Amino acid sequence: MQLGMVGLGRMGYNMTLRLMEKGHKMVAFDLNAEAVGHIAQQGATPATGLDDLAGKLTPRRAVWIMVPAGTPTEDSIVKVMAHLQPGDVIIDGGNSNYKESIRRGEMLKEKGIYFLDAGTSGGIWGLENGFCLMVGGDPEAYAFCEPIFAALGPANGYAHVGPMGAGHYSKMVHNGIEYGMLQAYAEGFEILHKSSLGFDVHQLAALWNNGSVVRSWMLELAERAFAKEGGDLNEIKGWVADSGEGRWTVQEAIDLDVPAPVITLSLLQRFVSRQDESYAAKVIATIRNEFGGHAVKKEGGAIEAPKMSPDGGTHG
Amino acid sequence: MQLGMVGLGRMGYNMTLRLMEKGHKMVAFDLNAEAVGHIAQQGATPATGLDDLAGKLTPRRAVWIMVPAGTPTEDSIVKVMAHLQPGDVIIDGGNSNYKESIRRGEMLKEKGIYFLDAGTSGGIWGLENGFCLMVGGDPEAYAFCEPIFAALGPANGYAHVGPMGAGHYSKMVHNGIEYGMLQAYAEGFEILHKSSLGFDVHQLAALWNNGSVVRSWMLELAERAFAKEGGDLNEIKGWVADSGEGRWTVQEAIDLDVPAPVITLSLLQRFVSRQDESYAAKVIATIRNEFGGHAVKKEGGAIEAPKMSPDGGTHG
Repeated sequence: MQLGMVGLGRMGYNMTLRLMEKGHKMVAFDLNAEAVGHIAQQGATPATGLDDLAGKLTPRRAVWIMVPAGTPTEDSIVKVMAHLQPGDVIIDGGNSNYKESIRRGEMLKEKGIYFLDAGTSGGIWGLENGFCLMVGGDPEAYAFCEPIFAALGPANGYAHVGPMGAGHYSKMVHNGIEYGMLQAYAEGFEILHKSSLGFDVHQLAALWNNGSVVRSWMLELAERAFAKEGGDLNEIKGWVADSGEGRWTVQEAIDLDVPAPVITLSLLQRFVSRQDESYAAKVIATIRNEFGGHAVKKEGGAIEAPKMSPDGGTHG
Repeated sequence: MQLGMVGLGRMGYNMTLRLMEKGHKMVAFDLNAEAVGHIAQQGATPATGLDDLAGKLTPRRAVWIMVPAGTPTEDSIVKVMAHLQPGDVIIDGGNSNYKESIRRGEMLKEKGIYFLDAGTSGGIWGLENGFCLMVGGDPEAYAFCEPIFAALGPANGYAHVGPMGAGHYSKMVHNGIEYGMLQAYAEGFEILHKSSLGFDVHQLAALWNNGSVVRSWMLELAERAFAKEGGDLNEIKGWVADSGEGRWTVQEAIDLDVPAPVITLSLLQRFVSRQDESYAAKVIATIRNEFGGHAVKKEGGAIEAPKMSPDGGTHG
């Protein structure tokens, strides 16, 4: 079928390639004209703007939005909406907050335009392996767009998972789980790395990927990373960003009164990773010094020797 | 080659079958004579005791111990040792504490007997998929036994990972990681299950196994479990045992000063799962009632209405 693609970043570009490989006709737009030029060389119809994109699609139109969550997605949807007509379908394939997706879906519904929120997993590997798609929204609009999902996803790797918002909701939880899994692997590898038994973390990641209980695609990526970077990871800083879905998962758990301590803590560990210094640890150090005369490390690195506390320094 | 198998439980029985399928000659013993009878029908040479087992093996002997960690493993090793001679090899394939394995290895070394600690992953699926083997100990003894490991493991699924203790150490950490992964998946599925969007957790597990970032063998097992039990898991109690390796991983992290909060918390959540009642929560409830007049739930289920605290009940 014919599809408009708005956004030719890492994900949108690869998705457009994959859709064309599977025989779909793509009309592509990006604010970056160079990206549009590149994809046109691959066979897509270039669009100079959202009006041009809409004009180059034959109704009933389907437009895939693949831009960063938040303002870029909001702007793209509001702008493209103006050039669409009742019955057309907008698909948001980004990592939008599901509450925003429900709001946007309701806004489009008033114009008779359908909205599908498509949680998309697979990252930069999707071109090769297919993108796992969790799609929420109207079942008829889903059925209309199913050839697109079938082309993007691997076999059994796409599904209609619920009403408007359900696609981004399930992608949000998927990412929350990802935070916890990453943290679990990371802690395990740090223990191995610090052990005096001299483990080769790359060897173990590779070994575990063959028949162990913890084998996973993420562990295959760990194996690749250790092969490339070396087990000491000397060239990598222990600094980890977070892109929203982890926070939203934690917020959702709180809203539902669901105890999700490990996902929550995995998010908090990312905050820890980004601190150059811990004010909380300073607070603890200084209070321990007060009550127990325990050593504190001074700015500059000198450790101030413990002094005896009034009661003999028996506190922790 | 020829191998003695001590222990014909779930794991030892399947391993013996797999080894025979690959052409190895097995001499098998278990305290349960029935299990010995069964495996003899499958082609193993039955042994009536550890002396008989040793007698039926031609030196240089190799004996695999596959019994529960702790006393059963200790007893088996000490008893079989008496019937072996210098150069023979004992392999402990169980989930022993690595410190015990180092101690046992040293004890056997004094008799000239080699000891290999083989961390074994794959559970009841190993017969079909192969068991992932992490082996620690003397490299020459490892080389002698390699045909056994090659038969038990899938391709690239076995390796010599370090000195004595390294096999059980890496298996310990592997299991610690498993605790964290399980908890991360579990929390995610609980959020989905509690959501008002009406998710089908089985559908999502199946979907995620096709191309998503969180795909894994454990998620395939989740998919199977949801298919069998239904997404509400009505017939399953939220009670989770722990078998030692999680505790040891946490202890090791503490000994190494490695922050492993998610693995630790995953262990603690298992303790929570086994409590009928939380004394700590009672403490919180009663103190909140003291300082804020907040409601407490009384034994029997009645909720005692909040009363105004002296300062207006503004505390949390």
